Amino acid sequence: METTQNNQSAKNAPIGVFDSGVGGLTVFREIMRQIPNERIVYFGDTARVPYGCKSQETVTRYARQIVRFLRTFQVKTIVVACNTASAYALDTLEQETDIPVIDVVKPGAKMAAEMTRNGRIGVIATEATIGSQIYTEYIKKLNKNVTIYGKACPLLVPLVEEGLLEDPVTDEIARRYLGELIDIDIDTLILGCTHYPLIRSTIGRIMGTGVTLVNPAYETARELREMLSAKDLLNDEPPALGGNQYRFFVSDKAEKFVRFANSIIKYGILSAKSINIEEY
Amino acid sequence: METTQNNQSAKNAPIGVFDSGVGGLTVFREIMRQIPNERIVYFGDTARVPYGCKSQETVTRYARQIVRFLRTFQVKTIVVACNTASAYALDTLEQETDIPVIDVVKPGAKMAAEMTRNGRIGVIATEATIGSQIYTEYIKKLNKNVTIYGKACPLLVPLVEEGLLEDPVTDEIARRYLGELIDIDIDTLILGCTHYPLIRSTIGRIMGTGVTLVNPAYETARELREMLSAKDLLNDEPPALGGNQYRFFVSDKAEKFVRFANSIIKYGILSAKSINIEEY
Repeated sequence: METTQNNQSAKNAPIGVFDSGVGGLTVFREIMRQIPNERIVYFGDTARVPYGCKSQETVTRYARQIVRFLRTFQVKTIVVACNTASAYALDTLEQETDIPVIDVVKPGAKMAAEMTRNGRIGVIATEATIGSQIYTEYIKKLNKNVTIYGKACPLLVPLVEEGLLEDPVTDEIARRYLGELIDIDIDTLILGCTHYPLIRSTIGRIMGTGVTLVNPAYETARELREMLSAKDLLNDEPPALGGNQYRFFVSDKAEKFVRFANSIIKYGILSAKSINIEEY
Repeated sequence: METTQNNQSAKNAPIGVFDSGVGGLTVFREIMRQIPNERIVYFGDTARVPYGCKSQETVTRYARQIVRFLRTFQVKTIVVACNTASAYALDTLEQETDIPVIDVVKPGAKMAAEMTRNGRIGVIATEATIGSQIYTEYIKKLNKNVTIYGKACPLLVPLVEEGLLEDPVTDEIARRYLGELIDIDIDTLILGCTHYPLIRSTIGRIMGTGVTLVNPAYETARELREMLSAKDLLNDEPPALGGNQYRFFVSDKAEKFVRFANSIIKYGILSAKSINIEEY
């Protein structure tokens, strides 16, 4: 009897999701869609965004603080919804945490390794993620016969953050970054930064129909569902009405976060709470 | 005798200069040029850059930590070489600090109020600086008969950070931001972010010869020299050779900082030291 109750309470526990800012909302959105019964606590580190130009040491320190914060909600699992934090901090977080940690890199790498036909995979991401070679490492483990071409695209995040989702400037900058991947004749492209799915149509248009775009946000939600199911941790029932199914926390500028969130997610996000993450 | 010695030691004390990252180096550069005998300790908050999209509360907390760090060097004065930090945190820093604090906003505002002929002044800056209305407040104190037009230019910082100083994309984005200031017929434009002097020629070309560009970095160094002179704190003698005249600290990515610094300053900057600013 006690075991069942404990398991029920574990199933009801929320999922912790974090990102450097708003990009991880593309992962949140996929989790909402794929496992709609789950409660989620989302944290965006808007006081220290972006992570993509910062060092492993710094990003790992930030990720540790965020995990400490999320654990105050007794989360049953943590989703690192940020490629840079996945690339730099996943090993540390896994070693230090006794609940499952899901990242966005492994699921995207796995899908790309399965999808490619000509063995030429492109990855676009932040400087940090590309520099870490993390996608190459994971994909090579799954399939030795592929070649991975990484391209850092540092200006795409600020362009997305400014809302220039359909704009000639974003188009021009994307063309510059993607040009060499087109020349190399890749057939699969990983959108290795959580902001990029928001300009997926621009990227798709530039790459052409011959190139499959892999969205790690989608693959991550699928992996999360499978992991929770395997551990019998999926929430069987929809949460009670008015029960705060989704809670949002940021380290700065809660109102701006809520505006952005509502522009990309069809779910009335009423508020986000600002906290001082340096205290964790 | 003791007084003289104390004064000599006060004169020899370094100047503390800080910014959210590399932008404040344009202020550092002007101080080097205008008062070459001074020792300077520079801090760039590269672990939390940028400040321009963050809140007053957060930027003030960051600025306080940095002042505590700089004071460990017994600095004789502090220069807030960041418009956002000047706009948000100057009042707090002045109240809490018993050494002079110089900001970049007041000197630029003063020069613009003196320069304008038609009473129409433009200010380009980060979202935070424009939102604070700080330039308007200062200029109005000096000259009630002017109108100030503020324009936030959030993409110019990432474009400069990416080194696109002379590039059609930077040109296009700058034209979009500056278009309405041209239509309004301003005759004076304040470069209200320390990154902007690095694309001064692009901005000047777009605005045309009828518009005077005010560079707060230059005005700040002049104000600093005058203040130190008035308080008899100017260093009379050049520092001893090998005496670490300029020291650089950052909160992240010291090597990248050094590369950028050497690209804009004609002084061999050999190293910067990375520290954990959250500990201050």
